[in-house]
Amino acid sequence: MLRDWGSRDKAFIALTARIRARLLEIAGVGASHVAVPVQGSGTFAVEATLGTLIRPDAKTLVLVNGAYGKRMVAILERMGREAAVLEWPEDRPVEPQALDAALAAEAAIRHVAVVHCETTSGILNPVEAVAEVVARHDRGLIIDSMSAFGAIPFAGAEVEFDALAASANKCFEGVPGVGFAIVAKDVLAAAAGNAHSLSLDLHAQWRGFEANGQWRFTPPTHVLAAFDQALAEHADEGGVAGRYRRYSENRRILVEGMRGLGFETLLGDEVQAPIIVTFLMPSTPGFDFQLFYDGLAERGFVIYPGKLTVADSFRIGCIGRLGPDEMRQALAAVEVTLKSMGVGVLETVSR
Amino acid sequence: MLRDWGSRDKAFIALTARIRARLLEIAGVGASHVAVPVQGSGTFAVEATLGTLIRPDAKTLVLVNGAYGKRMVAILERMGREAAVLEWPEDRPVEPQALDAALAAEAAIRHVAVVHCETTSGILNPVEAVAEVVARHDRGLIIDSMSAFGAIPFAGAEVEFDALAASANKCFEGVPGVGFAIVAKDVLAAAAGNAHSLSLDLHAQWRGFEANGQWRFTPPTHVLAAFDQALAEHADEGGVAGRYRRYSENRRILVEGMRGLGFETLLGDEVQAPIIVTFLMPSTPGFDFQLFYDGLAERGFVIYPGKLTVADSFRIGCIGRLGPDEMRQALAAVEVTLKSMGVGVLETVSR
Repeated sequence: MLRDWGSRDKAFIALTARIRARLLEIAGVGASHVAVPVQGSGTFAVEATLGTLIRPDAKTLVLVNGAYGKRMVAILERMGREAAVLEWPEDRPVEPQALDAALAAEAAIRHVAVVHCETTSGILNPVEAVAEVVARHDRGLIIDSMSAFGAIPFAGAEVEFDALAASANKCFEGVPGVGFAIVAKDVLAAAAGNAHSLSLDLHAQWRGFEANGQWRFTPPTHVLAAFDQALAEHADEGGVAGRYRRYSENRRILVEGMRGLGFETLLGDEVQAPIIVTFLMPSTPGFDFQLFYDGLAERGFVIYPGKLTVADSFRIGCIGRLGPDEMRQALAAVEVTLKSMGVGVLETVSR
Repeated sequence: MLRDWGSRDKAFIALTARIRARLLEIAGVGASHVAVPVQGSGTFAVEATLGTLIRPDAKTLVLVNGAYGKRMVAILERMGREAAVLEWPEDRPVEPQALDAALAAEAAIRHVAVVHCETTSGILNPVEAVAEVVARHDRGLIIDSMSAFGAIPFAGAEVEFDALAASANKCFEGVPGVGFAIVAKDVLAAAAGNAHSLSLDLHAQWRGFEANGQWRFTPPTHVLAAFDQALAEHADEGGVAGRYRRYSENRRILVEGMRGLGFETLLGDEVQAPIIVTFLMPSTPGFDFQLFYDGLAERGFVIYPGKLTVADSFRIGCIGRLGPDEMRQALAAVEVTLKSMGVGVLETVSR
């Protein structure tokens, strides 16, 4: 990131090609798919994917159990594309059986969109089972895999999907500023002219790369140099399997330690992804979330406020350049912060 | 850029606020305008500005004398917004008189869009005179000031404009990955719901900053940290006046030196911005552009191929962290490269 890359220079063209090829390998797909990076945050990549693959007159069914599912609905509405919604509470995974019934009932639905790991709660949605249902009904599947891809196993060769969107700065541990989509080549080839936006047209972006290896519009060169390095470190750690192992161990240490201090998780362990964990807000007198947040921040640990509608909560992440030592240090900081607030044994109002 | 900023952290909120305030100062506007940064390349910022300020049913007149004017037309067409075009050859500035006549003739035109410095040729368009005509006809003006803002004097308090879009990585010498628009507050306040895109909705982006100082969607934190530093260095150099002086001196050295070697500029000096200079391709036998380009690149100087339709040409930039020494080194590299090609006195076919 300390080097000024010329975006039309041979070395940078090679860097872009390396990133694109590596993403396909990680997804477990070959020549059937292409990787198309796009400038901006993850939401930009999701919007580019939806806007490019969905024809203006086509209807999309969005599976919603959190804020990121809702965001896809908001994107579709803003683009003027028809959206139907199947919704579940934030503490329950989406259900393939309900999807099956919905697709059987409505032939007009051409696409299904689902979030892989819904970071609103930290829940893991069963995208493989969803993909099986969508393929059986011959519809197209778009997966927002923002905080899952790279750390949650995904056998792309065995899962039928039109596109999967993610970004450099979640499980790949790169810096923010670029997202990408992995798209079925035949689907993308047929998507010329669909996009509502010039900047977010994945088809034109892809054609640009195919033509001369260059980005259509100025790329965030330093961010991409960091992404290239992050992908090398991802491979060094053993790829998806290695990262899944470390994050899972982070989650285990975190959840066991927090339960030991009296905290309760929102989700049952069987649907809890090793990405971010939601804890219910304790009802113990003396526990004040702002003091808790600030106390942890002072000790070097920044946590997340809750984003739930079903319960008062807060969240702690398991991803990033963190291992067992950092998770144990975080738990020690939680314990010290609780003591500084004068809180002993925690109670949580059961929901 | 070596620090991992938390995007919802107080220090980063302060950094964003500092950038936004500084941009208004540089534009010479006060509380009448707001600065709204947006993730992505400069084109993303231009599209966000056009998409947010122009109502879906409104017609826009685009003044075109190069590729970036044409790009605004392409953006409007892609969004399904009506566009009219007034076009000039690439070696002539846009003409306020023709604009005056066009606006008098067509009441349906609500907005005018113009490129400040058209880097296709390096020409400076007379945005102040354009703004005067647009204001007299009571239409709204949108300026793509991508490669001008920060180095070309612009008296925002005396120029009536709805919005001006630019980016961190041109005259501010930051790294690529973020653009911004400076928008009249009353115009932006009235623009809710116009945008064709969720990601590129400047109104919602602005409301987000106003609500809690935070970005709606993950910002490119490292890019913004670099932009903050770049703005401090811009101020240290004496702001726009200081940068204009250095770039103008770069241009003078470049143009005089290249003319001394027999090269001819496309533009007359009176319309040549101190940003990028277009040279006509020599017709001297033995001059081979690819060899010339590669010879300069080997010596550490990367130039630009031409982008003109009116003449065969190439371009050399005057901006970035470059001063008289680097411009003289570039000229020495040009001279040595010409010699290595066996080319003596240059001839250029007059157009």
